Amino acid sequence: MRLATVRLDDGHHTTTVARREEDELVLLPHADVGTLLSGGTGWQDRAAWDGERIPLAKGRLAPLVPHPNKIVCLGLNYATHIKEMGRPTPAHPTLFAKYDGSPVGAHDDIHMPPVSDGLDREADLGVVIGRRGRHVPRERALEYVAGCTVVNDVTVRDWQHRTREFLSGKTFEATAPVGPVLVTPDELPPGAAGLTIECGVDGHTTQKSDTADLLFDVADVIAYVSTIITLLPGDPIRTGTPGGVGAGRDPKVFLRPGQELVATIEGIGELRNTVVKDRL
Amino acid sequence: MRLATVRLDDGHHTTTVARREEDELVLLPHADVGTLLSGGTGWQDRAAWDGERIPLAKGRLAPLVPHPNKIVCLGLNYATHIKEMGRPTPAHPTLFAKYDGSPVGAHDDIHMPPVSDGLDREADLGVVIGRRGRHVPRERALEYVAGCTVVNDVTVRDWQHRTREFLSGKTFEATAPVGPVLVTPDELPPGAAGLTIECGVDGHTTQKSDTADLLFDVADVIAYVSTIITLLPGDPIRTGTPGGVGAGRDPKVFLRPGQELVATIEGIGELRNTVVKDRL
Repeated sequence: MRLATVRLDDGHHTTTVARREEDELVLLPHADVGTLLSGGTGWQDRAAWDGERIPLAKGRLAPLVPHPNKIVCLGLNYATHIKEMGRPTPAHPTLFAKYDGSPVGAHDDIHMPPVSDGLDREADLGVVIGRRGRHVPRERALEYVAGCTVVNDVTVRDWQHRTREFLSGKTFEATAPVGPVLVTPDELPPGAAGLTIECGVDGHTTQKSDTADLLFDVADVIAYVSTIITLLPGDPIRTGTPGGVGAGRDPKVFLRPGQELVATIEGIGELRNTVVKDRL
Repeated sequence: MRLATVRLDDGHHTTTVARREEDELVLLPHADVGTLLSGGTGWQDRAAWDGERIPLAKGRLAPLVPHPNKIVCLGLNYATHIKEMGRPTPAHPTLFAKYDGSPVGAHDDIHMPPVSDGLDREADLGVVIGRRGRHVPRERALEYVAGCTVVNDVTVRDWQHRTREFLSGKTFEATAPVGPVLVTPDELPPGAAGLTIECGVDGHTTQKSDTADLLFDVADVIAYVSTIITLLPGDPIRTGTPGGVGAGRDPKVFLRPGQELVATIEGIGELRNTVVKDRL
């Protein structure tokens, strides 16, 4: 099953859940994928209901879960990226957060802030939690996955590194696309491993890797995070980016206004976003 | 004005806003201080309404804003704490996040997790945002403050330092007390500067400083964070802790189950919490 959160043309910024069926979207009576999942067990049945159908092309995509309880992100989770950033291999998952003003939809503009030109790409596998869990054993962790999606953890690189904490550079407003759909685990390999993950800028591939190369895999991460805090339905986890970011080049290469980023994960979908420069 | 979020004895985990008036609490028809503030301008008028009165001692305190949009925390914001942690003085505010499963009420237990004995105290001045703001100029920043409170940013120190990011040690479930009340700016000095901030463990003072010693003050922090992301009503900002944490001692001293922590800020109030060890 493939689920999206789409914007309705009602002038009120209303969103609704849509199930993708070939070239159509079936509109469902839930505000977004987060509220669908938060409604409790049986969400798969509720997501299978029938409803009004609209052509796929008419569905304007909102962030998949616009207001999650928390956004969990991993840094330094592919060997190629760890090497290009000059870091030692971490013994534990490197967790950081992002606030919900940062994600945008799968085709929305990426907003380069007025205060920086150091914007950089980071395609990630995104995992969305389907049920509440604390102290989840690794061997049961995949039962907590509602599905997977594509995220581009676009980063304001100079602000990421101006203090010892990543957060400032990772949570700028309207920078981080997510979508296009949540793909349920039955349509993916176990743990979403073995999928090609790519990011391109203006048609040139800059990142290309395989989700099987995650240092800490999806089950590891769910078990680890749930040791710390209760995971809730709709919580997204961004599992980290492979090598090929602009900050890893010599000289460094950052994004420019007008460039188009395409982030793709095999079997899940594609994000396509244009960089725009915000002015004060 | 002094506002709290209190738990009702209705068996449904319901909370409500209460205004403190001497030895009484006036119950108001808002679920918590966050929803009161999110209701838009005029919240001060809505908070001044009359309502049922209960004795102060019957008000069981919930976290002041149980589900904020975001929790913003500062590290390394008092010279004494920067020195004891062996860090250079930062040129910019060091921001990190916390998830909303972490805060507890002003008299709730602090849960030492099964996986660590490295729990440490960190009394902070907390600021709660009263109105939406992005790109807020420093000279207008204090207009965005709904009020101030006391927080104890209790930290799982070994998990804070096991990767390069603070988050893992800063967001353990049910570790970080906040309250007892939101005190509006008219009852405090400008920017809540010049207030004695203290933390004691079993009656011994371990931290004692003055909020005027903040490296980045309340106005600096609001202006800075709003450069990155939109601040929303109810968002709390934890402004950092002064010197005197257990990890700054030689040898290091961590909290033990059964110990009582008291964090106080002059003119705002007191948190009083007991450490309990969680078992799996």
